[in-house]
Formats: sequence, structure tokens, C-alpha cells
Amino acid sequence: MGAQLVRFRYQGELGWGLVDGDEVRVLADRTDTLAAVLESARDGRPGPGRLSLNDLQLMSPVTRDGDFVCQATNYRSHLAEIGRDPDHVPFNVFFHKASSSICGPTDDIVKPAHVTLLDYEVELALVIGRDISGPIDATEDTLGQWVCGLVITNDVSARDIQISHEQFNKAKSYRTFGPTGPWLWLAEGDELTRWRELRLTLKVNGEERQNSLASDMVFGPVETLNELSRIRDLKPGDMIATGTPSGVALTLPSKEVMAASRTATPAERYAMFLESQQAVSKYLKPGDIIEAAIRTDDGRIDLGVQRNRVVDA
Amino acid sequence: MGAQLVRFRYQGELGWGLVDGDEVRVLADRTDTLAAVLESARDGRPGPGRLSLNDLQLMSPVTRDGDFVCQATNYRSHLAEIGRDPDHVPFNVFFHKASSSICGPTDDIVKPAHVTLLDYEVELALVIGRDISGPIDATEDTLGQWVCGLVITNDVSARDIQISHEQFNKAKSYRTFGPTGPWLWLAEGDELTRWRELRLTLKVNGEERQNSLASDMVFGPVETLNELSRIRDLKPGDMIATGTPSGVALTLPSKEVMAASRTATPAERYAMFLESQQAVSKYLKPGDIIEAAIRTDDGRIDLGVQRNRVVDA
Repeated sequence: MGAQLVRFRYQGELGWGLVDGDEVRVLADRTDTLAAVLESARDGRPGPGRLSLNDLQLMSPVTRDGDFVCQATNYRSHLAEIGRDPDHVPFNVFFHKASSSICGPTDDIVKPAHVTLLDYEVELALVIGRDISGPIDATEDTLGQWVCGLVITNDVSARDIQISHEQFNKAKSYRTFGPTGPWLWLAEGDELTRWRELRLTLKVNGEERQNSLASDMVFGPVETLNELSRIRDLKPGDMIATGTPSGVALTLPSKEVMAASRTATPAERYAMFLESQQAVSKYLKPGDIIEAAIRTDDGRIDLGVQRNRVVDA
Repeated sequence: MGAQLVRFRYQGELGWGLVDGDEVRVLADRTDTLAAVLESARDGRPGPGRLSLNDLQLMSPVTRDGDFVCQATNYRSHLAEIGRDPDHVPFNVFFHKASSSICGPTDDIVKPAHVTLLDYEVELALVIGRDISGPIDATEDTLGQWVCGLVITNDVSARDIQISHEQFNKAKSYRTFGPTGPWLWLAEGDELTRWRELRLTLKVNGEERQNSLASDMVFGPVETLNELSRIRDLKPGDMIATGTPSGVALTLPSKEVMAASRTATPAERYAMFLESQQAVSKYLKPGDIIEAAIRTDDGRIDLGVQRNRVVDA
């Protein structure tokens, strides 16, 4: 079974460890970056100390020195809910979040004062374990040569900014808009071949909003990694968020509004969009508690649960 | 006058230096990252060696460990040429290029085999010199506290990918799609206050395609940096490309096509776009030589010239 790598703060000090039941085996390595820990973890030097998991403040196991690459609209159910045809997705669309949006699995999500339509997106993220500097031809069986593990991330999104700006970067890059963790599942053996069985769930104040198997993805990890390797470099510690299933707050306007907006100016279209979202009660408000989890139904692969509260700036 | 920091390869070794006429004063520091060189440059330790500039293969002075943030549609003349109203630009739009797109100021630009509409965009880039981890209120006079210098970058773009994917990241992230250099102008005194006087020019095979003063920008460096600081962190060595003026190959379809495309499906609209670009001869072809330069007309601030050839993959 894969190891669960955590980064934590304990009595004012940062550390890394491996979860062992209710405890954490502390690693000797106290480096700042996930890339360095992955390197030293290969040498297999577990430290002597143990700490109770309950005593630790968990941080994101993915550190902010890596790239935060995202796939847009990569679940059939999410495509359907935003009015797109899941059977005709001609290409894999990528964008970046600023890595400084990463926060811990229990940190507060800070709603900027000017943001009115704050939304959630539970996502399965791949973490890169090895330098990729040219085309690779990974297969389901060899994916683990490049992907060292899996982690939960929440692609928190300001829909009002996203729709007006068209480019997703700003709307999804605010500080605390990327809760990540609680741990990085370091895959062992052929565990990565079971990625389709991972179930993503997200609740707001206990009400389930998202619940989907990763098998609903349009472009799976192998196709995505192979295409990215033909475009750009990736390095250990980089994270690729693979898209979100249906159930987000963002709601398609009525057919009448959609038809009218096709001939509207961009400003008119945006006003119609804002108007259409006024009746949607699912957008996040200060005080809301978001719980996101990813695991196989048999519990053999369990990425844990993150629990974040929304607060005002 | 600002110092011109170069990164170079000489007899198989990498190094850093400061341009001094036809020569380069070699820095003692041979670290891998611009951030580390900026740190040691503060200690002011010039090495003893001198090399002839002509003997060096210049690399990008901006290294690939930083973020490559870009502003979209930030010149009035470029907004006009793509059919937008320069007097009504409601917000500053950002996106990321993968940092691995960065290449040297004389490196070949590799056209991927599947890309048909390859375009250029000369841009003035700001290089961050100091950690920004919260809101700042820079002014024209204090900009130099956060921006250590200026450099030329070419935001090479696959327009066929950009228009179909809508998100700009993939179209602009291919390896070699970000020629940067020849040197980083490390600003001294109040030089940064003269940014509006910088003239950006770009030629293809000797024919001038772009020629504009930076004063044509919509959102200047101060506004941009202040807004970014309210969204995300920036760190020494990060680069912010501030947009391109008019003159790119991308050409607005005719009014008739634009009107028809408003009621077309996305697939139909994309087909119309591709059709409209067939007659445009300005797109880059293998063998084309691109020369990009940025300087004040009085030559007091001179970011140099980059010269890149387009080649087939």
C-alpha cells in the first residue's frame, strides 16, 4: 500500500513524515521543497521520531516552488452541466494557477472582497516524480515512472472574474484558492493503474455537491502526460490537476438567455451571466465548510479528506 | 547607466557576466538561477576575467525556475487591430507561459509540425528582484524596489491552437516559444521611470512588422504589479511580459465573416477563422529570421537585439 507523505507544522517547526495509523513517522529530512524530499525519500531514511497525527497542523505536501498545471473541462458530467457535448471534446485544454494559491488541507479559504461568485472544484492531482524534458510515451503500466503520487486539490474559482476575463488564470490564482492535501499518496506497485476507481466527493456544510468516479475523465493521466511532454518540461514536485466532475455552483443560464447572449456584445453577455447567477444559492459564503475527499470505494487507495472554511478577507 | 547582465555558454561551460563594450566582465558566481545571481550581485563581487562578447553563446538571462506571467492585449494599437475598443478595457488579463518555453536570444524557434499559424509578439518584460508576498503600493518612483530590471521577450504563439483552445497556455508554451534576452537591463537610479520611452520593434527577414512606444500600454508596470501583489506571490527571477503592440500576423476576419461568426457554432466559428487566415502571408515559416529590439530613442536604455531563426521540428 502506498505511503502517505505529510508536511506539517509542530511546535512552530516545519517537518515531513509518513502517516502510520494515528501517528506520523517523522522524516529526518527537513528541507523546504517536495522535490528535495522526494529525492531523499528514495534513499529511504526514516527518522526515529513519531508524533500523533492529531497534534500536527498539516500543510500542503505540494510546495509552492513547482508549477500548478490544470486541465479545463475534463469530466463528461461537468461538460454536460455547462452545456458542452462530452462526446466531442477535440482537445485537452490547459491553464496555470499561480503556485502561491496552494494552501493547507485545513486552512481557511479567503474570499477577496470584490469576488461575488466563489466556487469549488474537487480535483485529483498527479504529482510529477521525475524530470521530463522531452517526449515520453507512458502507458497505464509505466505511468508510475513519471508520476510519483496523487493528491486532492480544490481548484477554488471566482466565477465572476473567470467569465469576464475569459483567461482562467486570475480567477483561480488568489492566495488560498488551492487547498492541497492532506497527504501525498506515494503510489506503490501497480496502484496507479486503478486511477479510474477513485471517487471524488465534495460537500458544503455537510451537503454533497460532487460525487463522481475518475473514470468519467475525458483525457486520462497517460494521454495528458504524453501530450504535455511534447509541449513543455515538467519536474519533480510539479502538480497537474486533472479537472472537476459535475456539481459546481456555476449554473448554465436558461436556454432563452443562452440564445439571446449569442448575439449580444461581450458586456451585455456578461451582464446576462451575472443576472442568471443571482438565484443560484450554491456559491460559497463566509462560514461555509467544504469537505473534499478522494478514495477507491474499497478504501485501498485513500487520499484523505480536506476540510476548509470560507472566510472574508 | 544600468548594467547589462548576460548568461552565456563558453567552451562548454555556463557563466554570468556584465557587458562592458565589446567585452563581458565575468562574474565569480556560476550558479544556475537568476535569483541566486541577483542575490550575489548585491554583494558586488565582479570576477577578474574578461571575455569577448563575440566569443560567447548568449543564453536567456532569465532562468526557467521562475514564473513566466503574461498580460494579454495590453497595447491600444493591438486591441484596435483585433477589433477591440482601446478606450474600454475593463481589466488587466493575465495568463502563464510554461517557463520551459524560454530560450536564448539567438536560439532557433522550433515550429511544431502540427502548428500552421505561427506568430510573433515582441514584449517588454519586467523581472522581479524582491519577494512579494502581500499587497504592495508601488509608485513610478518606487517601482525599482520590486522590479530589478527589464528584458526583451518574444511571446511566440500558435494562433491555430490559441483560437481553438481559448485558454492561451498551450498555444504559447511550446519549447523555444519564449526567446529572452540578450541581456537583463539592471536598472539604476530613476531609469525605470522612463519605461514609456522604450520603443519596441520587431522585423521578419528585415521587414518591420512592429514599432511602438511602451507608452501605448493600457496597464502600466505600477498598476500591474500592485494588482498582482493582491492576487499572488512573486519572487526574484519571475518575469512579467507586459503585452505586445500592433503588427502581429494574426488578422481580423472581414466584417462579413465577423458578423456571420457571431451566430455560428464554435466549430463553425473556428473553421471561419482558419479560412480567414489562409490569405495572410505574415505568419512565420521555417527559415524566417526574427529580429526584436527594445531601446529608448536616445539609446540611453538599450535592452539589445535578439535574432532567432524559425526551423521545422
